[in-house]
Amino acid sequence: MATVEARILRGFRDYLPDVMLPRQRMLDRVASVFESFGFAPLSTPALEYADILLGKYGDEGDKLLYRFFDNGERDIALRYDLTVPLARVVGMNRDLVKPFKRYHIAPVWRAETPGRGRFREFTQCDVDIVGSESLMADAECLAVGAAVLRALGVERFELRVNNRKLLTGLLERVSVSGAAALGVLRTVDKLPKIGEDKTRELLQSENKLDAAACDAIFAFLKLAPDELASFFADSEIGRKGAAELAELLALAESLGIRDRVAVDLSIARGLDYYTGTIYETFLLDLESIGSVMSGGRYDDMIGMFGGESIPSVGISLGVDRLFFGLQELGLVTPQVSPTQVLVTVFDENTRKHAYDIATQLRAAGVRTEVFLGTGKLKKQFQYADRKQIPTAIVAGPDELARGEVTVKDLKTGTQQTVTIDGLVAALARG
Amino acid sequence: MATVEARILRGFRDYLPDVMLPRQRMLDRVASVFESFGFAPLSTPALEYADILLGKYGDEGDKLLYRFFDNGERDIALRYDLTVPLARVVGMNRDLVKPFKRYHIAPVWRAETPGRGRFREFTQCDVDIVGSESLMADAECLAVGAAVLRALGVERFELRVNNRKLLTGLLERVSVSGAAALGVLRTVDKLPKIGEDKTRELLQSENKLDAAACDAIFAFLKLAPDELASFFADSEIGRKGAAELAELLALAESLGIRDRVAVDLSIARGLDYYTGTIYETFLLDLESIGSVMSGGRYDDMIGMFGGESIPSVGISLGVDRLFFGLQELGLVTPQVSPTQVLVTVFDENTRKHAYDIATQLRAAGVRTEVFLGTGKLKKQFQYADRKQIPTAIVAGPDELARGEVTVKDLKTGTQQTVTIDGLVAALARG
Repeated sequence: MATVEARILRGFRDYLPDVMLPRQRMLDRVASVFESFGFAPLSTPALEYADILLGKYGDEGDKLLYRFFDNGERDIALRYDLTVPLARVVGMNRDLVKPFKRYHIAPVWRAETPGRGRFREFTQCDVDIVGSESLMADAECLAVGAAVLRALGVERFELRVNNRKLLTGLLERVSVSGAAALGVLRTVDKLPKIGEDKTRELLQSENKLDAAACDAIFAFLKLAPDELASFFADSEIGRKGAAELAELLALAESLGIRDRVAVDLSIARGLDYYTGTIYETFLLDLESIGSVMSGGRYDDMIGMFGGESIPSVGISLGVDRLFFGLQELGLVTPQVSPTQVLVTVFDENTRKHAYDIATQLRAAGVRTEVFLGTGKLKKQFQYADRKQIPTAIVAGPDELARGEVTVKDLKTGTQQTVTIDGLVAALARG
Repeated sequence: MATVEARILRGFRDYLPDVMLPRQRMLDRVASVFESFGFAPLSTPALEYADILLGKYGDEGDKLLYRFFDNGERDIALRYDLTVPLARVVGMNRDLVKPFKRYHIAPVWRAETPGRGRFREFTQCDVDIVGSESLMADAECLAVGAAVLRALGVERFELRVNNRKLLTGLLERVSVSGAAALGVLRTVDKLPKIGEDKTRELLQSENKLDAAACDAIFAFLKLAPDELASFFADSEIGRKGAAELAELLALAESLGIRDRVAVDLSIARGLDYYTGTIYETFLLDLESIGSVMSGGRYDDMIGMFGGESIPSVGISLGVDRLFFGLQELGLVTPQVSPTQVLVTVFDENTRKHAYDIATQLRAAGVRTEVFLGTGKLKKQFQYADRKQIPTAIVAGPDELARGEVTVKDLKTGTQQTVTIDGLVAALARG
């Protein structure tokens, strides 16, 4: 067979163990928090009929699909996100008990131009509540988000909320609708980065708003939450948004997370399908990396596969961004190997003892390797060292005759002799 | 937007929570056993350059690839297994510390004709040791396989081993090589199903062997392990195979798993790339479902991406088959929801208390939902019942005034009143 150069597609990544281990630990912890709130895992195929996905992400999104014809000439594509497959599943399984609370952690594919931090395959991590119109569901997304960040060791974070109905009310007031509305919101979204003067300039030049409309927008953006209701005295949808936001804040208070929730009226997010609450989440010591967890309520989306629509709300973790943030904050312990203890093999005759010790350690929950082969102890220690295994056990014939082993701390180089029973107890403790 | 019928591609599956929950629990347990032996997780992209995959699985395999041109006219394909991507990773990262022990649990895609138990997307679960020629590595695959099955509650299983060098020696003796050799082994593989007479008939009619060759093959198949060395007195490779098998059995003895390991000289498996030990694993109470864990040593494979070859050995779990087996053996607890306790919401005024109780329970490790909304208790119990949540908590104003709640067992219908502190302690216990 002709040899082929080993290479990987641009925009794709291998996760070698040193990254995969802490990343997997992070995702396991996240899944465990999701389950602690009663969210159940769901899995859907990587491939879908193209028409299931097309038209859901805008023209730009359609172009980014990995779309092709299979051997049976079916028009298929790799999933672009986890929300449309969820909608398909709910559409096909109308008898699912509602509220249906699911999480889904899986890769998605987008043929973006690869660049710094932009990949063609990346992991999404979504949690959604399908079939509840109660704002308790919106509040639960805040609670689960806060619990996730705390479980990962982050204490300084802020969940920022807005309500799409407020934005709709605002845009009605300045008489902007349709594609122009989306344009205005995109400009407003830039406010934190470019400041008020530049934003006002763009609203006039790009979005063709007059000075009065701009004034109305900036007046809105500066409102305190308790001023929203009177600002929207004349707008039914605006008043509804204000009431929802107030109720959400009251629920956050009941949930004991009010101090982590802030109103940010400039959050706009995918105007196309959000209908109520919208979320973004910032690490306060790393605001510049952007929102690490975003989402919102989308009450009209699941109707897209026919049948009645089902009110839904969800929040999605930016896995790579959050992992990067945790690394920056020193909350990721790099690890090359899961192994905690290497049992060295002195010679062929003591191998059985090495295996016995390893079996006892594993039974006590200690992740344990036995060196594969025999050979100089120095070589075996080097292996442990290169794999960053913290502890090595030496069990030579003399020690074994006394029912003892030597425990070597490979960081400090110190060693001590202990009984085999004592070893298991000591290492199992930690 | 025009509505599209919600449908899934043939040969693909959604895993709804009732299957996904126990399946995920199984895979988590498997991963934990892998890590307890020092195997680290690896992740590779779903998509590879087609030429990385082509020619590795035979002509049949090449045809089953999901292969297409991406937007940049690159010839790409979805991975067909996890072994070739491993070989690519090792080829691209020559400095990985050896032995490199990795596991990988991920979907693969094959455009097979869908049928009973045959899907176009399925999960593989591989554990491999790259860069050790020691038979201790082969033995470790047996040990990790046995540990996996025990961790899943299976006690009656058998790991069956053979050695490809024995088969090579045998085929040399009967003067068969190349494609014809593969044909002979495929016929021999049928022996357990069709019996000796029919197998002999096929060896003569299909494989064109004479009676003496057939005699030699059946003489070989009936050998006891300790007769192999003298049978192959004249064959260097046969003697080497016999010595390796004997050493493997001795290592299994040292590992304390000799009683779960049997020699089966009829196991042939993918002759194309195995070079030494080969494995299959049977659940003794469900032999008919076939091998649930298979693999072997492939010392020449990683050289296919250029550079020197690296001796490797691995074993792969048939995730779907094993899960089916566990279901049949009654070892899978069906579960619709991860939730252990539903905290009902009596009214708006007691909601904060419901949240507080839930937070305390979660902190104690109890997976807890709060009913999303208020409404008749009967409706809330029905929800718990349909989600098979075993326990519900009622915390009405009178109970809360006394610092108490009512715990209702939804299976038996019995209920008792306990203090809130007592509740957490009781439910956390289990």
